[in-house]
Amino acid sequence: MKKKAIILCSGGLDSATIAAIAIDSGFDIFCLTFDYGQRHGREIESARAVARLFNASKHVITKIDSSMFKGSSLTDDIPVPKDGAFSGVPPTYVPARNLLFISFGVAWAESIGARDLFIGVNAVDYSGYPDCRPQFIEAVSRAAELGTKCGDEGDPIAIHAPLSGLSKSEIIKKGVSLNVDYSITHSCYDPTQEGLSCGLCDSCRIRLKAFEEAGLKDPLAYVRA
Amino acid sequence: MKKKAIILCSGGLDSATIAAIAIDSGFDIFCLTFDYGQRHGREIESARAVARLFNASKHVITKIDSSMFKGSSLTDDIPVPKDGAFSGVPPTYVPARNLLFISFGVAWAESIGARDLFIGVNAVDYSGYPDCRPQFIEAVSRAAELGTKCGDEGDPIAIHAPLSGLSKSEIIKKGVSLNVDYSITHSCYDPTQEGLSCGLCDSCRIRLKAFEEAGLKDPLAYVRA
Repeated sequence: MKKKAIILCSGGLDSATIAAIAIDSGFDIFCLTFDYGQRHGREIESARAVARLFNASKHVITKIDSSMFKGSSLTDDIPVPKDGAFSGVPPTYVPARNLLFISFGVAWAESIGARDLFIGVNAVDYSGYPDCRPQFIEAVSRAAELGTKCGDEGDPIAIHAPLSGLSKSEIIKKGVSLNVDYSITHSCYDPTQEGLSCGLCDSCRIRLKAFEEAGLKDPLAYVRA
Repeated sequence: MKKKAIILCSGGLDSATIAAIAIDSGFDIFCLTFDYGQRHGREIESARAVARLFNASKHVITKIDSSMFKGSSLTDDIPVPKDGAFSGVPPTYVPARNLLFISFGVAWAESIGARDLFIGVNAVDYSGYPDCRPQFIEAVSRAAELGTKCGDEGDPIAIHAPLSGLSKSEIIKKGVSLNVDYSITHSCYDPTQEGLSCGLCDSCRIRLKAFEEAGLKDPLAYVRA
């Protein structure tokens, strides 16, 4: 029987790539998506498409009370920056999001007997979120080891961040080599009602630049690109 | 203005005591309770009573998808041990529960500008859960520091476990000195439909023994005590 792995699946480019990597590594995948009232709720549809594309054994979409996540452009009525110019942690940062997402994943992993969890964070071409850095992944791995029965028994849940050291264009090339169909993914923080990507938010900018650097055309439709 | 603190409030003896300690330390308290399909759902009523008793500025009861927490006596059809005799982590252990609860608390704290979170874990008279030990609290504190904007900016959320080194009877004495009314709390893992405590589960046994050691009478009603 194949080993089980939890995939934290937002429906973005990164989570589609980690799903492909986990499948390529021989795992049976269990996708976990969060509905936290995010502005770009459109990504949940993409998460469904990713789970289908990779024949996930199960896909759970779980709600998180939106009162937990305040003060972010993605959850509140705060504009998403479109000028590509700021330093520090941007207003699209959502409080402790990856800590909470990983904790859910660790609980589900232990519940179903999985010992592997994949998260698509990367710290090269990213928005400067503190919870995407390798030091954070190391620290939360340690907390998960000490805070679970399986970890206590010497069989901890491994938290894999296989994209961590890759540039966005390297991630795309990796995914293409594993037949990821990026047309089903979604990255924009502020899509139109029809689902077109804005082309101007940080997430669109990073994505478009990466496709260009990879010498590929982004299959998504943009308002402006 | 008073500083805000998040209280992880299950409605048990420990969480009522930490609420009293936080109030006594001058905090404005924000209580957070989880509805995860626990067998002892009765504890949610006690959590409401605790939040009322201490005039919490807000009390959020948030749902967690019960599919995240499997394989426990508290969430599945697995008997709650009643004989007081086992070693190791007992079947009432819920996968990664405190990791997930603390992560919720950290997210909410950062969202509302709180820098303090109280959790009523203790590692003296307890059931042997790995996620109640000081090493775990230290590790999750570090993860919360590295995984939040405020932590990254040098203003991390402090996770307080003021009961950690106390025996259960010391906890009760501390609470009584702070006027905690333990009649509104609930500890039993397997209460009757009428809300009577069983008196035989691990949680009842620890509680009853502690009241006896403290030279006090437990105000709760038991089927057998």
